[in-house]
Amino acid sequence: MKNAIILAIGNELVEGIIVDTNSKYVANKLLDYGFKIIAIKTLPDDLEILVPEIKESLDKADLVVTTGGLGPTNDDLTREAISLATGKKLIYNEKLGEKILKKAEEYYKEVPENVKRQGYIFEGAIVIENPVGTAPGQLLKLGNKTIIILPGPPTELQPIFQKILKYLEKDNPIYVRRIKTIGIPEAVLVEKYKKIIYSRPDITVATMASYKSGVELRFSGKYSLKNEIDKIVQKLLEKISEYVYAIDEKNIEEVLFEKLKMLGKTVSFAESCTGGLVSSIFVNVPGISKVFKGAIVAYSNEIKEKILNVKKETLQQFGAVSKECVMEMAKGVSSLFSTDYSIAISGIAGPTGGSKEKPVGTVWICAYKLESNEYLYEKFLFKGNREIIRYKAVLHSFNLLRRLIHEEKKKNNN
Amino acid sequence: MKNAIILAIGNELVEGIIVDTNSKYVANKLLDYGFKIIAIKTLPDDLEILVPEIKESLDKADLVVTTGGLGPTNDDLTREAISLATGKKLIYNEKLGEKILKKAEEYYKEVPENVKRQGYIFEGAIVIENPVGTAPGQLLKLGNKTIIILPGPPTELQPIFQKILKYLEKDNPIYVRRIKTIGIPEAVLVEKYKKIIYSRPDITVATMASYKSGVELRFSGKYSLKNEIDKIVQKLLEKISEYVYAIDEKNIEEVLFEKLKMLGKTVSFAESCTGGLVSSIFVNVPGISKVFKGAIVAYSNEIKEKILNVKKETLQQFGAVSKECVMEMAKGVSSLFSTDYSIAISGIAGPTGGSKEKPVGTVWICAYKLESNEYLYEKFLFKGNREIIRYKAVLHSFNLLRRLIHEEKKKNNN
Repeated sequence: MKNAIILAIGNELVEGIIVDTNSKYVANKLLDYGFKIIAIKTLPDDLEILVPEIKESLDKADLVVTTGGLGPTNDDLTREAISLATGKKLIYNEKLGEKILKKAEEYYKEVPENVKRQGYIFEGAIVIENPVGTAPGQLLKLGNKTIIILPGPPTELQPIFQKILKYLEKDNPIYVRRIKTIGIPEAVLVEKYKKIIYSRPDITVATMASYKSGVELRFSGKYSLKNEIDKIVQKLLEKISEYVYAIDEKNIEEVLFEKLKMLGKTVSFAESCTGGLVSSIFVNVPGISKVFKGAIVAYSNEIKEKILNVKKETLQQFGAVSKECVMEMAKGVSSLFSTDYSIAISGIAGPTGGSKEKPVGTVWICAYKLESNEYLYEKFLFKGNREIIRYKAVLHSFNLLRRLIHEEKKKNNN
Repeated sequence: MKNAIILAIGNELVEGIIVDTNSKYVANKLLDYGFKIIAIKTLPDDLEILVPEIKESLDKADLVVTTGGLGPTNDDLTREAISLATGKKLIYNEKLGEKILKKAEEYYKEVPENVKRQGYIFEGAIVIENPVGTAPGQLLKLGNKTIIILPGPPTELQPIFQKILKYLEKDNPIYVRRIKTIGIPEAVLVEKYKKIIYSRPDITVATMASYKSGVELRFSGKYSLKNEIDKIVQKLLEKISEYVYAIDEKNIEEVLFEKLKMLGKTVSFAESCTGGLVSSIFVNVPGISKVFKGAIVAYSNEIKEKILNVKKETLQQFGAVSKECVMEMAKGVSSLFSTDYSIAISGIAGPTGGSKEKPVGTVWICAYKLESNEYLYEKFLFKGNREIIRYKAVLHSFNLLRRLIHEEKKKNNN
């Protein structure tokens, strides 16, 4: 297996101004090409640090991918650092330079002089032009080592990297399976089924718990182990099917979208504490308009009453964070939008607003089917900060509707 | 200035399953404590890689912070790697171990045996108990070097790191100022004002462009340069005030919240292509219910007509992505929710749905004031994928309302 190191370059990354999402993208792709990622290093725009790190990375790994530091401003030094570390010269490419200047004219009223820097290319490099911005990608061979140079903005990096990947030979591709669950803690899952999960030392197991996607088990190994990996996945599925919402690449909103599309059904949401997050995550799925009509974000009791038809007495007697309120919200939005299903969420995301009876993290969720007037509701007590409580509520909202549809199907089959 | 290296440990990070957000958090805090981050390294759960990297990091930096790899499962190896790299022994702490087991009982119906591993502590380490999960944080002094060991889940890491920071002396604290802009490209900004921006070599400048927050300029230097940094910021503000939406820590939604709160005004949103994203980002601001009543996500024309009162003729004649439609949507939601202001967004986020006249990325946004029946609208053509187009629409939505309020204020002052 060949080793790869990713170098994410930029002061804004090491200083914590922005989160590096490129490395996740690049790592994921390289894995499919059979590379083992031995490190992702985030480094500042500083030649004294960059030059030795690039040298060292080329020593340790077969492939080094750099992201960022190709911009037109003075603090972008990746080109220079690679040149110093490898001894390879940068040569101005007239033709490319002209194209870059022309493109820059579309973007800028006055083209800044320093854009020209982006026309410098390494001797012998394969150049991939930038379909979005101006800095091109480059692939440079150095004996049996390879270095790939990518611009930092994700919209520019992704199409360039897609094209550059074709120049890498697939080396010992690996086989990967994923099982995604909601409702069972990571440690319980692993402890209870460790004999199945860790049954083969030649199969790599990664477990990970996330408030955005639940608990995931990931099995990987050489392609020749395909059957063995599939067997483990199959055995586990027989044990924990009630918790499994997806297998392999799909996430819960995609699973739910496909179920609804297959059934030819529509859905709407009534959101209080999640403030539109359920809806905004759902619309990330392309084609969602086939099943999704819309949502009401009812952030005040007045709106819950006026628009969602929640009774004044319900709010007075039980409060907005109650079974009764989410049931009325779900029915209200489903009727208003004429959708087959709906989900309603009301809770306390914090940091304030909690009480002894209803502490911060208390969230009521209700999934509803208009035709049969069926409700599936549950009360949760989520731990974490405001953001985490919200994301957990989203995850369990989708899961509750998945369960409502699932249970219905089971009933019909009996 | 002391150097720091952050080691983010976990297969799920190097393999691109999840994005590392901890390093941004830790880096940001360390910066305020006067540390220079010379690298953030993301490493797999692999002793052969971890041990030499930990040794090397302790060689190069004064402070090494590790995050992750403290879980109860077999693939968590950070403790062992640090022990091997430093020669320090791990000792089981009975008292702490008992507490961890007790806490684990709250979480698990059957406590997994391997939770016990989290009770092992380094000889002489300062221990910070985990207020959320079970793995404690540790601070270990090794001569003039320091290593801080933190659990991976952000909700556990953050409160522990806050406490551990008190054991670090502030060393040469630095002074930081930020200017945040919308509407001027990074390269134009830098080229046009480079004489002001780069006027002092002892002041570090970072520029960064993000579709979530616009273009930011960040000036930092020793605390003794405070006056010089303030002067640069002041000079720039005089030149580019029309683009500046915030100074220093605030983001645009916080700026908008504060403006509305100060004026005692309320707002609602009517979202089409953003699908609830404007609303879900707005509610991240604590206390937002003082100004925010709710939103309508109208993902179909039917809902735009039925709930937002958009005229059938408007949709037929101009389409849903038009000035006329967002104007009616804005008025509709403002009337329905009885809010002083509103914002409406309708556009084509892609990947499909574009046409020659209205390509993917076309977004109409309208800010509205009910009392005076005033509209401020603008058509945008955003580049990027579905997610980026949406986030850009959110940013410009907030900015359009900020401008409407701002222009009104100017008028009143004249």
